[in-house]
Amino acid sequence: MTTPITTTATDRPGTRVLDHPDRAAIRLEDVLHALADPVRLQIVRRLAAAQGELSCAVIELPVSKSTCTHHFRVLREHGVICQIYRGTAKMNGLRRADLDELFPGLLERVLEAAELQDTRPDA
Amino acid sequence: MTTPITTTATDRPGTRVLDHPDRAAIRLEDVLHALADPVRLQIVRRLAAAQGELSCAVIELPVSKSTCTHHFRVLREHGVICQIYRGTAKMNGLRRADLDELFPGLLERVLEAAELQDTRPDA
Repeated sequence: MTTPITTTATDRPGTRVLDHPDRAAIRLEDVLHALADPVRLQIVRRLAAAQGELSCAVIELPVSKSTCTHHFRVLREHGVICQIYRGTAKMNGLRRADLDELFPGLLERVLEAAELQDTRPDA
Repeated sequence: MTTPITTTATDRPGTRVLDHPDRAAIRLEDVLHALADPVRLQIVRRLAAAQGELSCAVIELPVSKSTCTHHFRVLREHGVICQIYRGTAKMNGLRRADLDELFPGLLERVLEAAELQDTRPDA
């Protein structure tokens, strides 16, 4: 769970790398869009709490497997998470360093805002 | 430009109030969705810089009038801006106090991130 994710390990046996935007190609609007969906926000919060890689399977979500796959792909294509196959498991990790570099403090405020929202009387 | 916006001035002559979500009904996911569009983000940045009400007409945008109207409506319905008719002018203002109360620091980080993004070499 604490293995650092690399997107360049194409030569490692059992490792398959999916397409990810370079840091310079990550756009604020895309990141906000990726975070704007409740299921995707839930994934991001889970990954932030884990502070490392998690397989899709261990992140319990209230949607079908194909919908899950879609949401993980949106997060990856918009630069929010890294996804990498390790053997047959697709592992996911937040691109925290990239996001913090590009948009200082933004992810942290979103995570805090989500926590606060959970504590509202109507939550 | 510095007139404070009120959403309860239904008894003022020439003032017509549009529907706005109560503060408690504003959801993080909706705010992120509202901010995730480049045109809407541009509107929010312009209103933040103005620190007061602006009419739709003075905010120059690279889209048609009906598309503008749509974007302003999304921002209002998602709790990001207030819109109020003053005579024939529809005036817009950021719901900064509400957003800061619900999601501390979030709007500020988004505005900063947008500024930073503008300064990127590829911007």
